[in-house]
Amino acid sequence: MKTAYRYEAIAKQLQQQIVSGLLKPGERLPSVRQTSHTQGVSLTTVFRAYYELEARGLVVARPQSGYYVREVVNRFRQPSQLSKPQPIAMNITVSQALRQLPRGWSHPNVIDMAVAVPGLSLLPQAKLNKSLLTILRHLPDSGLGYETTCGFPELRRQVAQRLTWADHVLTPDSVVITTGCIEAITLALRVTTKPGDMVAIESPTYYGLLQVMEGLGLRAFELPTDTQTGPDLEVLNQSLATQPIRAVVLTPTFSNPIGYCMSDEHKKALVDLLASYDVPLIEDDVYGELYAGYARPRTCQSFDRVGRVLLCGSVSKVLAPGYRVGWLVPGRYRDEVIRAQLMQTNSPATLPQAAIADFMQTGRYERHMRQLRVVIQQQVLAYRALILEAFPANTHVSMPAGGLVLWVRLPDDLSVNLSSVLAQAVAQGIAFFPGYLFSTQPQYGQCLRITCGQPLTQLYINGIRKLGELISHI
Amino acid sequence: MKTAYRYEAIAKQLQQQIVSGLLKPGERLPSVRQTSHTQGVSLTTVFRAYYELEARGLVVARPQSGYYVREVVNRFRQPSQLSKPQPIAMNITVSQALRQLPRGWSHPNVIDMAVAVPGLSLLPQAKLNKSLLTILRHLPDSGLGYETTCGFPELRRQVAQRLTWADHVLTPDSVVITTGCIEAITLALRVTTKPGDMVAIESPTYYGLLQVMEGLGLRAFELPTDTQTGPDLEVLNQSLATQPIRAVVLTPTFSNPIGYCMSDEHKKALVDLLASYDVPLIEDDVYGELYAGYARPRTCQSFDRVGRVLLCGSVSKVLAPGYRVGWLVPGRYRDEVIRAQLMQTNSPATLPQAAIADFMQTGRYERHMRQLRVVIQQQVLAYRALILEAFPANTHVSMPAGGLVLWVRLPDDLSVNLSSVLAQAVAQGIAFFPGYLFSTQPQYGQCLRITCGQPLTQLYINGIRKLGELISHI
Repeated sequence: MKTAYRYEAIAKQLQQQIVSGLLKPGERLPSVRQTSHTQGVSLTTVFRAYYELEARGLVVARPQSGYYVREVVNRFRQPSQLSKPQPIAMNITVSQALRQLPRGWSHPNVIDMAVAVPGLSLLPQAKLNKSLLTILRHLPDSGLGYETTCGFPELRRQVAQRLTWADHVLTPDSVVITTGCIEAITLALRVTTKPGDMVAIESPTYYGLLQVMEGLGLRAFELPTDTQTGPDLEVLNQSLATQPIRAVVLTPTFSNPIGYCMSDEHKKALVDLLASYDVPLIEDDVYGELYAGYARPRTCQSFDRVGRVLLCGSVSKVLAPGYRVGWLVPGRYRDEVIRAQLMQTNSPATLPQAAIADFMQTGRYERHMRQLRVVIQQQVLAYRALILEAFPANTHVSMPAGGLVLWVRLPDDLSVNLSSVLAQAVAQGIAFFPGYLFSTQPQYGQCLRITCGQPLTQLYINGIRKLGELISHI
Repeated sequence: MKTAYRYEAIAKQLQQQIVSGLLKPGERLPSVRQTSHTQGVSLTTVFRAYYELEARGLVVARPQSGYYVREVVNRFRQPSQLSKPQPIAMNITVSQALRQLPRGWSHPNVIDMAVAVPGLSLLPQAKLNKSLLTILRHLPDSGLGYETTCGFPELRRQVAQRLTWADHVLTPDSVVITTGCIEAITLALRVTTKPGDMVAIESPTYYGLLQVMEGLGLRAFELPTDTQTGPDLEVLNQSLATQPIRAVVLTPTFSNPIGYCMSDEHKKALVDLLASYDVPLIEDDVYGELYAGYARPRTCQSFDRVGRVLLCGSVSKVLAPGYRVGWLVPGRYRDEVIRAQLMQTNSPATLPQAAIADFMQTGRYERHMRQLRVVIQQQVLAYRALILEAFPANTHVSMPAGGLVLWVRLPDDLSVNLSSVLAQAVAQGIAFFPGYLFSTQPQYGQCLRITCGQPLTQLYINGIRKLGELISHI
């Protein structure tokens, strides 16, 4: 278990002062030197605390001047909100809605605030190519031969290391490499459910999950989900007792789209609850590495003692979407998963797996991630501030605990048809995902998801302003 | 349409003389010069004719001496055989049989006559690496970004070109790139069937197809299949009229395991028959490029006018199994296929696709294939001759029209348990696939499949001899 750091205590203290109003929006924080002196800690520790507050969107740094409480702080200090889906299992029809998205959507020059990936300019192209060249030289067959279904051994070792905690040790054999996170989720659902089964999910949830579930003929039972703390475990408990729920799929660490991160206590309670009903948890951990603090949040799987959690991840959100390298840590379902993968794709391509293994092994991955986390975090905050400025008053924007998407809720009293806004936006070269894709029920018509993966260049600034105008019917 | 070549006429004439006994086993053919003189054709034309006969296993070249009628010729001039599966739909349980294969099976140092791929030493590692380096330089994002689901455009163009005939032109948009041929088959079945459906297949058939069908909950209706001409179309016609067959899956060009190639007339008749019942054909064309003659046999799809044939292929059998690059030409099912793929893997990895596109575009692919076809063909003949020598008398070995596997039937009066032979073989480092994996019915207990992908080194010669001994209980 991680011990609490000194900087965390300082950050917490300052956060309380901000939230309670003791420090007001626009007010300057004590200087780093001053705090170092009063608290008796090093300058580095204070910097880390301030940096943490900045990451949480509470303060903003002004060059040559210091740290200031953010003006927007009141906006996101709104109480957390709980979604209220109907407690019934729904058939899924998201693929029809996706088909009806306007054409021109995936044009290469579109201002892309839709697809949830970092901009290509943020990815370590040259260094990853270096890893690829290394493995081309070192692999005896240059990746030509069949790899075993469970995947390239060194990559499995690297992934296992990264998902290991002191009280939860994984081995390379715990990991199965997949063709992206989506194959991991598909396999996890295939081995735990049958067509027609009911599966509990968060609300709103990732449209891609709905698409996979639709393809497998599953029904969705949406759980009330809090924007800060995640799914309501009380309701989940009741639902498990009364409904034939066969599996639960959640993104406990930086959910997509709303961005909550469940606390460790909450994660453990979830795992224990599901274990008591003997229901598997499929944990979509694809954003787990994009944390805003100093340490990676624990996975739900790390609290699992019975092998009932199937963890899904990939490098698509942080390193190389086009490499299609993901993984599944399938717990007790390993044999079934490998059989199902044999029937589906046999195994993922060897070269991308080996290149990423080298990238991780040489430490390039950690260096890249340290940079990327900061950049993405700053982009998310910058997008957020701009949306609050450019969209109608009383627009609510999520304050994600990590990841790279924002969930935007337009004012309830604003009459707006997001399908029509989207059509106009795409016609002008701007893409985003409308909220109705993120549920099987008609509850998010006022919402949209904005991806903050691309650097906020003037082009993107204009795109957001334009989108604000379209929404406001200007 | 191809016009008949002069060399083909000469080859045909000589073949008739051999088959009729006019030219006897061991007898020397007229010299190339002599035939050139008597037939009034160039030396090159005669060489091509003799080469063709060699490819068909009818003659053998002896250096500095000439061409001789093969000794084994009588053995394979056996009348073709028709399998006789029960005309009932069967549930599939192949995955259990696969799980029970002995351990040690996939040890790297095993004498591998199981997995159907060419030996690594036959693959153009250095030249494919060149293509990979080229695209690393030329692709602006080095393959880091998401590719569209349907695949890398230049690869789709190259594949479309290769599957185009004068009266059947494909475009890049006709092609969807997949993660290997197995994903293509899975997708094709997913868009044409539902769990519980009945699907007609050849008998014996590829165990991997059975595995996919089992995973999708399909039932198998096995068709009587001739070792020379393929499935019995008369029976298929009757079955379509009386059984709820939802799709047909065949490998019309070099079936796996028996190696037949349907004639063009037969292929056209099959396509017309299925069109009259409005039943889709899933054409597994993964061995189509491994032909023994001078031209690639036409695909069934090339006779299709209504978009009801879904063609599946890959580079796994000829170029780079570990690249996991396959394709599906889905006819009228394109939209459904792309949706199903989105739900399964999103898209295949970009780099391997782009490398293979370059490899094809630069002509390296054709040069490689010209060499590989000859080598594989010679290996198949050499394996075949050795098996006939090393296995019990009256063993029947298929004479495949193309591809790289042999189907071996032990004498009916030989009492042998192939599960136990396999266990002993694997214990001694030798792997093959037993015949019972290739059907849902207990009809191939006397059969085994031998892959001829690895060069027939002394190690492999010893392996085959050892296997012959194990089978003969010596």
